[in-house]
Amino acid sequence: MLKRAIVLPPEHLYPPEEWRVTEKRYNDEFADRAETVFSLGNGFVGVRGSFEEGRPALLPGTFVSGFHETWPIMNTEKAPGLARHGQTIVNVPDATILKLYVDDEPLFLPTARVNSYSRILDMQAGTLSRDLVWATASGKHVRVRSQRLVSLEHRHVVAMTFEVTLLDHPAPVVISSMILNRQDAHARDVEPLEDQPGDPRLATVLPHRVLNARLTELADQRILLGYQTTNSGLTLGIGVEHVIDTACPYQMSGSVSEDTSEVILTAVAQPGVPILVTKYASYQTSRTAPVTELADRCRRTLDRTVRDGFGSLVTSQRENLDRFWDRADVRVQARLHPLRQQQAIRWNLYQVAQASWRAEGSGIPAKGLTAQAYEGHYFWDTEIYVLPFLCYTQPRIARNLIRFRHSMLGYARERARELSQRGALFPWRTINGEEASSNVQQGTAQYHINADIAYAISRYANVRGDGLVADIGAEILVETARLWEDLGFYGTDEKFHIHGVTGPDEYTTVVNDNTYTNLMARQNLSFAAATVRRLRDERSEEYAALVHEVGLRPGEVESWELAAAAMHVPFDHDRRIHPQDDTFLEREVWDLAGTPPGKFPLLLNYHPLVVYRYQVLKQADIVLAMFLLGDQFSREQKRRNFEYYDPLTTGDSSLSACVQSIIAAEIGSERQALEYFNYALLMDLANVAGNASNGVHIASAAGVWSSLVFGFGGVRDFDGRLSFSPRLPRAWSELSFSLRFRDRQIRVTLTHDEERYTVEKGEPLQVMIGREPHLLAPGSPVAIKRPQP
Amino acid sequence: MLKRAIVLPPEHLYPPEEWRVTEKRYNDEFADRAETVFSLGNGFVGVRGSFEEGRPALLPGTFVSGFHETWPIMNTEKAPGLARHGQTIVNVPDATILKLYVDDEPLFLPTARVNSYSRILDMQAGTLSRDLVWATASGKHVRVRSQRLVSLEHRHVVAMTFEVTLLDHPAPVVISSMILNRQDAHARDVEPLEDQPGDPRLATVLPHRVLNARLTELADQRILLGYQTTNSGLTLGIGVEHVIDTACPYQMSGSVSEDTSEVILTAVAQPGVPILVTKYASYQTSRTAPVTELADRCRRTLDRTVRDGFGSLVTSQRENLDRFWDRADVRVQARLHPLRQQQAIRWNLYQVAQASWRAEGSGIPAKGLTAQAYEGHYFWDTEIYVLPFLCYTQPRIARNLIRFRHSMLGYARERARELSQRGALFPWRTINGEEASSNVQQGTAQYHINADIAYAISRYANVRGDGLVADIGAEILVETARLWEDLGFYGTDEKFHIHGVTGPDEYTTVVNDNTYTNLMARQNLSFAAATVRRLRDERSEEYAALVHEVGLRPGEVESWELAAAAMHVPFDHDRRIHPQDDTFLEREVWDLAGTPPGKFPLLLNYHPLVVYRYQVLKQADIVLAMFLLGDQFSREQKRRNFEYYDPLTTGDSSLSACVQSIIAAEIGSERQALEYFNYALLMDLANVAGNASNGVHIASAAGVWSSLVFGFGGVRDFDGRLSFSPRLPRAWSELSFSLRFRDRQIRVTLTHDEERYTVEKGEPLQVMIGREPHLLAPGSPVAIKRPQP
Repeated sequence: MLKRAIVLPPEHLYPPEEWRVTEKRYNDEFADRAETVFSLGNGFVGVRGSFEEGRPALLPGTFVSGFHETWPIMNTEKAPGLARHGQTIVNVPDATILKLYVDDEPLFLPTARVNSYSRILDMQAGTLSRDLVWATASGKHVRVRSQRLVSLEHRHVVAMTFEVTLLDHPAPVVISSMILNRQDAHARDVEPLEDQPGDPRLATVLPHRVLNARLTELADQRILLGYQTTNSGLTLGIGVEHVIDTACPYQMSGSVSEDTSEVILTAVAQPGVPILVTKYASYQTSRTAPVTELADRCRRTLDRTVRDGFGSLVTSQRENLDRFWDRADVRVQARLHPLRQQQAIRWNLYQVAQASWRAEGSGIPAKGLTAQAYEGHYFWDTEIYVLPFLCYTQPRIARNLIRFRHSMLGYARERARELSQRGALFPWRTINGEEASSNVQQGTAQYHINADIAYAISRYANVRGDGLVADIGAEILVETARLWEDLGFYGTDEKFHIHGVTGPDEYTTVVNDNTYTNLMARQNLSFAAATVRRLRDERSEEYAALVHEVGLRPGEVESWELAAAAMHVPFDHDRRIHPQDDTFLEREVWDLAGTPPGKFPLLLNYHPLVVYRYQVLKQADIVLAMFLLGDQFSREQKRRNFEYYDPLTTGDSSLSACVQSIIAAEIGSERQALEYFNYALLMDLANVAGNASNGVHIASAAGVWSSLVFGFGGVRDFDGRLSFSPRLPRAWSELSFSLRFRDRQIRVTLTHDEERYTVEKGEPLQVMIGREPHLLAPGSPVAIKRPQP
Repeated sequence: MLKRAIVLPPEHLYPPEEWRVTEKRYNDEFADRAETVFSLGNGFVGVRGSFEEGRPALLPGTFVSGFHETWPIMNTEKAPGLARHGQTIVNVPDATILKLYVDDEPLFLPTARVNSYSRILDMQAGTLSRDLVWATASGKHVRVRSQRLVSLEHRHVVAMTFEVTLLDHPAPVVISSMILNRQDAHARDVEPLEDQPGDPRLATVLPHRVLNARLTELADQRILLGYQTTNSGLTLGIGVEHVIDTACPYQMSGSVSEDTSEVILTAVAQPGVPILVTKYASYQTSRTAPVTELADRCRRTLDRTVRDGFGSLVTSQRENLDRFWDRADVRVQARLHPLRQQQAIRWNLYQVAQASWRAEGSGIPAKGLTAQAYEGHYFWDTEIYVLPFLCYTQPRIARNLIRFRHSMLGYARERARELSQRGALFPWRTINGEEASSNVQQGTAQYHINADIAYAISRYANVRGDGLVADIGAEILVETARLWEDLGFYGTDEKFHIHGVTGPDEYTTVVNDNTYTNLMARQNLSFAAATVRRLRDERSEEYAALVHEVGLRPGEVESWELAAAAMHVPFDHDRRIHPQDDTFLEREVWDLAGTPPGKFPLLLNYHPLVVYRYQVLKQADIVLAMFLLGDQFSREQKRRNFEYYDPLTTGDSSLSACVQSIIAAEIGSERQALEYFNYALLMDLANVAGNASNGVHIASAAGVWSSLVFGFGGVRDFDGRLSFSPRLPRAWSELSFSLRFRDRQIRVTLTHDEERYTVEKGEPLQVMIGREPHLLAPGSPVAIKRPQP
């Protein structure tokens, strides 16, 4: 049950289109959401969709992957192993600002007379463009065209063009190209001890100066800035170059300082003669390199980029996106709002591309690089929500992300020690590898992240084969299995129990035998044991390396298998359902029907202890287990569990709807499957969660793909065997998608008349379609006719 | 089971004495503990026992009741109703410093050659005195005598004398009398973002300047200082006056500044001619008054105090203590270490006097005014541990403390709203009435504080009659009963359940049906109902006022009675014990025997989640219920419960031992009763908890009295009926104490031959002695001969 209104953006402002999101008019009402919707990024740099003028800017932000500040957590009660330092992604200096003055009048959209206006996010081109005609107070008409991109090809490059043309009269024109430190802008205004916002999803407002200028340089039209963060000591280099192209006479000037630098063009514009400014920016960060070195890197990048020109960036941008869409695109022919649906699907998938494309040596924050919310932390979202999509469409990125997680294994080992356990325990939320959650119940107690990571490795192996597992995955599997075996214990019932943990549903915390956790831990233990045995039998060299690396002891594998075999899985025989944990059903049931809409999400309206007392779910915990471990539940069991938990589920977590959609589809509840799909699909575009202004819900965006492919497409890959049980909704006439699976490229097209499965590239593949085995081979698609009901 | 070593202070350094604690030699090893042991206070001002020279000073501190700073709690995850501001008692400027220079050589004890030395805390006189002869490097001998008191009669006054006499040669002498702001001394040295100490019991190190000088004035030998705190905005006035008495020629000078002010005496001392400096200090604080007004108050206090002289303070000090000891003294004749035992008993009782005597309009911090630990917060300690002693010996103070709690009822009502409940919920820890705990599990979830406060009111009524109940107590009773009735619910078993709370034992948190909480809530509900009914029947005027004040609705009282009658009390029929909560017995048992001594207390050595998973107790939770609600358990049940929990109890909480001693005595386990008594008795003097340097454990100190009177004395007062079941240990030959009960003064003297009960003042009283009723009347003591076994 979700108590959320879906308010679609009005079509006269945001028309439905296949491949673009267009804004037809500047408007206050949607301005904050639009900042998120028009964000650009490449997984290394992200810029929010604020205007070239730099204002109005509601939550303007530029973020560089992994570039964060640390700060001391201050609260009353300390304890061993509690996180002592917060980590917050830094809002790095904004290079997108190009302020325009005509006759010394500034262009400012909220008050400007604008004769025509469009702002377009082109999801094939990977650009954000704006085109407007401004009628100044003195009656002159000015065309202002701009375009912006964050290069998918060149990960350190952000580039933009800004073209001003006087249409009827000459006028003095000033274009001020700025670099503005917004992170510390507020630090001058706020009291150091000001109240923090009460929304746990928002970033901490850091009361101290974060970015300290170590280098400020201006040479001609080029600015070079170097910063170091106060506590984390990370370095940041920014280089900005300007190329001017105009037949109008002009002069240049500039200045640099810690917080505000600018290059100013002053021209006398002639009617019909455009003034084009191309602005190239480069961002570099490091844990160790001095800013001078980063500045050198920026210089070299700028030299090369300027030489190749903006057109070259546009070309490579499209090439990258062609590759992305070739794998990732999902086409839906809906009977109602077909264009809007297609547009929304693509926007969500496009966001995942922007969040991950060049995530190399870093993770994917909960909001990608579209906001500072959730402090820019990496959660389990990556492994459980984003990786399935990437495994099937962009395995290169999936591999990078698993490697990144592996790179933090050392911290996870240390963390396990801090929690008196053997093996490794991955932090609930982190940027730098250390636990950054100061919330024991809803954070650190979510041990399930360990099993989620192990699960993602098994999932990757299902789709890609087990090369990565042999390489680095086994090490994670062993260390996570060790943790479970050490954490749990055999009760007097001889079952293996895991006490005092929190499952994915954060509305019930620190419980005994959370069913999701126990099931996933069992999977973790079994898969680790099977992996070690397989390596031993089949890859003696990798096995020897593993034994050395993790100090594998005799009997360990057997102990995991025993624990897995004895794992306690709570089951209520009266209701014939899986309780979320051992005492979940003893709680009172929250009166969701009687809760006013204004009281959602509960997490913003009730003290946690109040919420903890009830049967009420932030997200569908058991339902998620039934998707991830779907081969361990009968269809009937899935139905019963789903029907029990659905009325208890608020969906206050954006991670819930996509999963509810998948299981609803599987148990044949088409209405609910579509309803939940739409919630996930429109999470940000229609502001379903009410906080679209705080950035893209990346997990939900990737979940849209999962709902389509795993839900309606009915794709599963348990034990590496691909299967299809499609359930095309009656509201749709067609659904088609493609899958990269074990070096084959497979296309699936579903209509109500026919299901068509094609291997486009690679060897023939045995798959299950419904209950029947089929061989898919290149050149001979399998087409299954469905009689119309 | 307690794994604590009791290391008595060595007798050659700290000889056992009846009424004094003497330090015979300056020593490094015990220096930090001594700062606590030699603390002085009157419940309004407290000064730690650091030396006149101001150094060495390990944790020097001066505290004024209720004078605190607030600061923003900074952590990653916010939620509604979580405490947003920390509250920390301020270390106010230290006026005890008198630095001595002879021939420009400073007196500094760690390196000084000292020919004789004694420092004496006189618990009858209420003074701390030091007398030493210093042999300077140049071979001169100097006698330095000083005395210090915090006036019990004049709550704003701290006074001290400092007398220097050259014994053999003349010498230039300088005495620098300082006022030093230690709170902000470190603020200049530490990085603003420095790590906080990991011990949850220590105060937060505030990175900002706390005390801002608003007034600095020097006139002759008088200094006046006014401060305002940065965030809480409280004001503080300090006045210091100096009176010089000497036949030696001398000159005075001085200076004032924000952090360091001083008055300097420069003299040429003649042999045998003493130089006596008497220093009077006055502290004033306010929430609203400007510092100028506080300075005026200080001026008036100083004028009066100087006029009356130091001798007058000494006289009134002893008068106050005579009154205290007349009621509070407990005499024990132990067969082993009799003097040491008597000394330790008196030191503990004396600490309670120092923490509470002038606590007017404020509470008693966990450490009294002897340290900044626990941030100076008020907990349930006051109601459950300190009030019983005060009810029976100093009812004036008990009444003040209940009135102070009542003054915070408005905040408690607001707090209940924040937690979505009706009625009132008192904060777990506070100075200003707002919840200051940022720990949900171990802090806010301790709803039992509500019942503890209600219990204290019922206890006060048992001892004093119900005048206070009718006046203000009923309002608290109604509001707390409302909370319980609203918080709990009727389960399918038709029992009344309370979910999601933490009991006194903080090693198991946020559980369903914590037995202590349910029992205490039941008592709260019943007593509230009975009180309202009695007022309605017997005191119609007070009843009308109450109905008006709390908006009593029809049926409310009945609903409390129903909830009380249906209250679920967990019971395990197999083990025939009360489990601490509904699932406590499902947990693994912590291997206490196998835990190395260095790993205690667990709270400093294990992440909370680790501890939460096990059957292991910080303090004896059920055992406490069996003491407070002793009439609700059979003796046999008490024995079984005690024997189950005792091996699980670490005693990591200083609140545990005294209660374990009482129940051990009751069930006839004399050995354990004495052992636990000794832990409580020597908690600070022998540093049993390992943190005596961080201030006096006031609850344990008062618990010493409870162990003596309720434990060995066997005193109970259920339903206002006084009863005695003494169990004099074989190790003691005599125990005597007195009780103020319903306007009678009763003395009890127990030996192994005879028990003697005397009403010294007041009407005859019916009491139970053992199972027999007796009438105690003035002039006719009841003496019960006990045949020697």
